[in-house]
Amino acid sequence: MAEKEERKVTPRSQDFAGWYNDIILKAELADYSPVRGCIVFRPDGFAIWEALRDELDRRIKKTGARNAYFPLFIPQSFIHKEAQHVEGFSPELAVVTHGGGKQLEEPLIVRPTSETIINHMFAQWIHSHRDLPLMVNQWCNVVRWEMRTRMFLRTSEFLWQEGHTAHATKDEAERETLQMLEVYRGFCEEYLAIPLVTGRKSAAERFAGADETYTIEGLMGDGRALQCGTSHFLGQNFARAFEIRYLDDNNQMQHVWQTSWGVSTRLLGAIIMVHGDDQGLRIPPAVAPTQVVIVPIWRKPEERESVLGAARTAFDALENAGVRARLDDREGLTPGFKFNDWEMRGVPIRVEIGPRDVASGEVVLARRDMPGKEAKRKAPIADLAAQSRSLLDEIQRGLFAQARAWRESQTRRFEVYADFLKQMEGEGGGGLADVYWCGSAACETKIREDTKATCRAIPLAQQNPTGKCIVCGERASERAFFAKAY
Amino acid sequence: MAEKEERKVTPRSQDFAGWYNDIILKAELADYSPVRGCIVFRPDGFAIWEALRDELDRRIKKTGARNAYFPLFIPQSFIHKEAQHVEGFSPELAVVTHGGGKQLEEPLIVRPTSETIINHMFAQWIHSHRDLPLMVNQWCNVVRWEMRTRMFLRTSEFLWQEGHTAHATKDEAERETLQMLEVYRGFCEEYLAIPLVTGRKSAAERFAGADETYTIEGLMGDGRALQCGTSHFLGQNFARAFEIRYLDDNNQMQHVWQTSWGVSTRLLGAIIMVHGDDQGLRIPPAVAPTQVVIVPIWRKPEERESVLGAARTAFDALENAGVRARLDDREGLTPGFKFNDWEMRGVPIRVEIGPRDVASGEVVLARRDMPGKEAKRKAPIADLAAQSRSLLDEIQRGLFAQARAWRESQTRRFEVYADFLKQMEGEGGGGLADVYWCGSAACETKIREDTKATCRAIPLAQQNPTGKCIVCGERASERAFFAKAY
Repeated sequence: MAEKEERKVTPRSQDFAGWYNDIILKAELADYSPVRGCIVFRPDGFAIWEALRDELDRRIKKTGARNAYFPLFIPQSFIHKEAQHVEGFSPELAVVTHGGGKQLEEPLIVRPTSETIINHMFAQWIHSHRDLPLMVNQWCNVVRWEMRTRMFLRTSEFLWQEGHTAHATKDEAERETLQMLEVYRGFCEEYLAIPLVTGRKSAAERFAGADETYTIEGLMGDGRALQCGTSHFLGQNFARAFEIRYLDDNNQMQHVWQTSWGVSTRLLGAIIMVHGDDQGLRIPPAVAPTQVVIVPIWRKPEERESVLGAARTAFDALENAGVRARLDDREGLTPGFKFNDWEMRGVPIRVEIGPRDVASGEVVLARRDMPGKEAKRKAPIADLAAQSRSLLDEIQRGLFAQARAWRESQTRRFEVYADFLKQMEGEGGGGLADVYWCGSAACETKIREDTKATCRAIPLAQQNPTGKCIVCGERASERAFFAKAY
Repeated sequence: MAEKEERKVTPRSQDFAGWYNDIILKAELADYSPVRGCIVFRPDGFAIWEALRDELDRRIKKTGARNAYFPLFIPQSFIHKEAQHVEGFSPELAVVTHGGGKQLEEPLIVRPTSETIINHMFAQWIHSHRDLPLMVNQWCNVVRWEMRTRMFLRTSEFLWQEGHTAHATKDEAERETLQMLEVYRGFCEEYLAIPLVTGRKSAAERFAGADETYTIEGLMGDGRALQCGTSHFLGQNFARAFEIRYLDDNNQMQHVWQTSWGVSTRLLGAIIMVHGDDQGLRIPPAVAPTQVVIVPIWRKPEERESVLGAARTAFDALENAGVRARLDDREGLTPGFKFNDWEMRGVPIRVEIGPRDVASGEVVLARRDMPGKEAKRKAPIADLAAQSRSLLDEIQRGLFAQARAWRESQTRRFEVYADFLKQMEGEGGGGLADVYWCGSAACETKIREDTKATCRAIPLAQQNPTGKCIVCGERASERAFFAKAY
């Protein structure tokens, strides 16, 4: 059957990267574009981004940051003002050299991130301690020229939010950095059902221009880690480069202390890789554009009207209860095709209504987060909305629990380097390795060269703060998570 | 007093353009940026855009269009595929020639609008009549290199939404074009309190690549017109250029019929120029980020706590009633300074609470849409929320009525060309001229050269469809609105 053929997906266990691409194309989340490294966000993918963005936006505003919008273009000279920043971003820049038919006097960079232009403006807005803290956020597109791209995870253009703050004291800026890390963690765990490891980045993995970078890291279904968001303590690096100063209580000019923090459309990739299975997507209810899909089922033409009538009643009941519902009344498609289609699209609950259900005043609810018969239950139509709502909560928790169990099964403590090496070997090897590390760049490099694993996060709360470095055996005062990463 | 000096604004009647810029800078809506032709949207300006965007987004989705996101960059060859399109946009393009440190094989255009790249994708998504209608919308930044810029109205980068649809029949596409015109009209009139003239554009004013362009035009406070949004019937022009075809019921391949439509951050300029006065902004309540500001007033230190306590009670009552309220408890500023500050920022209602009010259980409400004593009234604190809500409705209607009265006073029918010329003369001359026009490009050009006025809109419903062209005296079958425009 042509219908079925079209829906075939590479098995996840067989080829994770192939499975990932298949899901994105077949669930119509995104498509390749004619522009190298850029993708098209199709409506079903963009709707997840919108739900995610709206909730995170609420949480960001709650911390006191306000949205603004700064220019897409940055004068080339700005990028050069902070030494580490230019070094980190130079290889990835897209450059506008012509505008309005003429060559520009100074080329413009398409923003790869906006520290430079935002801090240029901060220097004009900040004069006294009364102007602090200054906390802005913007949702926008950024461009980093990528040679090897992967949909959602690494594309030349992507969408994100970037927050930028300036504070009077170092202490306040540090607290802001960690507060945003916690906002991201709470958001990803509660809303996207993605359990995270959080911590500090090593010097090698730091943002170009930061004194300290903090990260939230998720573990994907193939045992590789994904950096899901970062929060940077910028110290006074940009404040010095852009001369952002304020008059303090004692009438002294002081440089401000700063932070920046961001998450991107990469989170869509995380949702797929953490929750998806061989049948397709599994979208956490909180972020699902459609939470419940109703599939009416009939064989004889005379059954059609009563089944559709009951389906419409069910739809209205769900909508009135604030459930994002959809009635699949498409003609000419079999129920089996529709089931597969909605499983592929990851809708958390499917409601089936047939002639016998109409007669008995019941419907069947099938949950997407578990397979087989135990995923199905009957419910009186009158009770559908209430049962759907509690089931959606259950599914949200269930997806998180499954993802956490996977993460825990893939997190291993190693005390012997050979054991660590063995675990990381080959395509299948992976997971999070929890090891003592002395903090030296030499040992970090050796691990990367031996295993392809990088330091993902150094947890902030350390329980056993002394041991021996897994590589060199020297005294180590911290444990760190290493993993192969996207 | 330094406080007062800083707030001084060029009088509107004296220098409308100077007044406009002053308002934007002093109300902190936007700022100049270091990039030619680009501006920074500051939080107070961006919050109005967010409110506006969220409401229009709801109305667009209600029509069945869904949001998506297409690449920022467009291959140069795409722009050349539709002959009129390339001719219209070529002088305004920003071009990326280098990426990742290398010269690109084919330069990339920063999108000035997305017909070309979206229709390239449509060609891949549309196969049969089952795929139609296809209706997408995107909120994004676009770039048109402008030599003469004005904040919000004409900038090299701006934010907008652009909807793009494909239909099986000409009739359906035409209906969609007019439906979106009506969505825009309803939105601007009901939500932004801006009365509009709607109609068809003349051939000279049409979108590059459209068969027909429809427009909503507002009349600004200086008597000049502003195009607030457009809806284009694209015919099959892009369908042919990009080979977008579908298999119809009779198994024949047919080109689709298309529309596109958009409004931009230019609407922020319209709000300022329609409603603002010498004291500053007047933001319509529906779109005001802060609808009610509470200013506590005390002289003696012992009054402070009771006044602030009552102010907090008032604030909570407003918030609980769903009113967007703000308590101005800033220290070290006089009530007079705060009054001026909030008038500048255009907050619709100011609530004043002093010691005597606390004693009597009352507050003073001052509305921003009218001057003097009649703008003030007393209300019991217990009744504040209810009175605020009904007053906000009244202000919303009031601002619309004021703007409509202005528009009507500035709309004049002319039957004699000399009278028309006289009205348009000089800096102060303007308004909407409602005249018979034969439709010839020659008469349109003559009007533009004689008066600087252009054809803004040809109304769709014509009451007296025959007369004599105001220029050549030949038979004219339509009346049209001419005005000097932004």
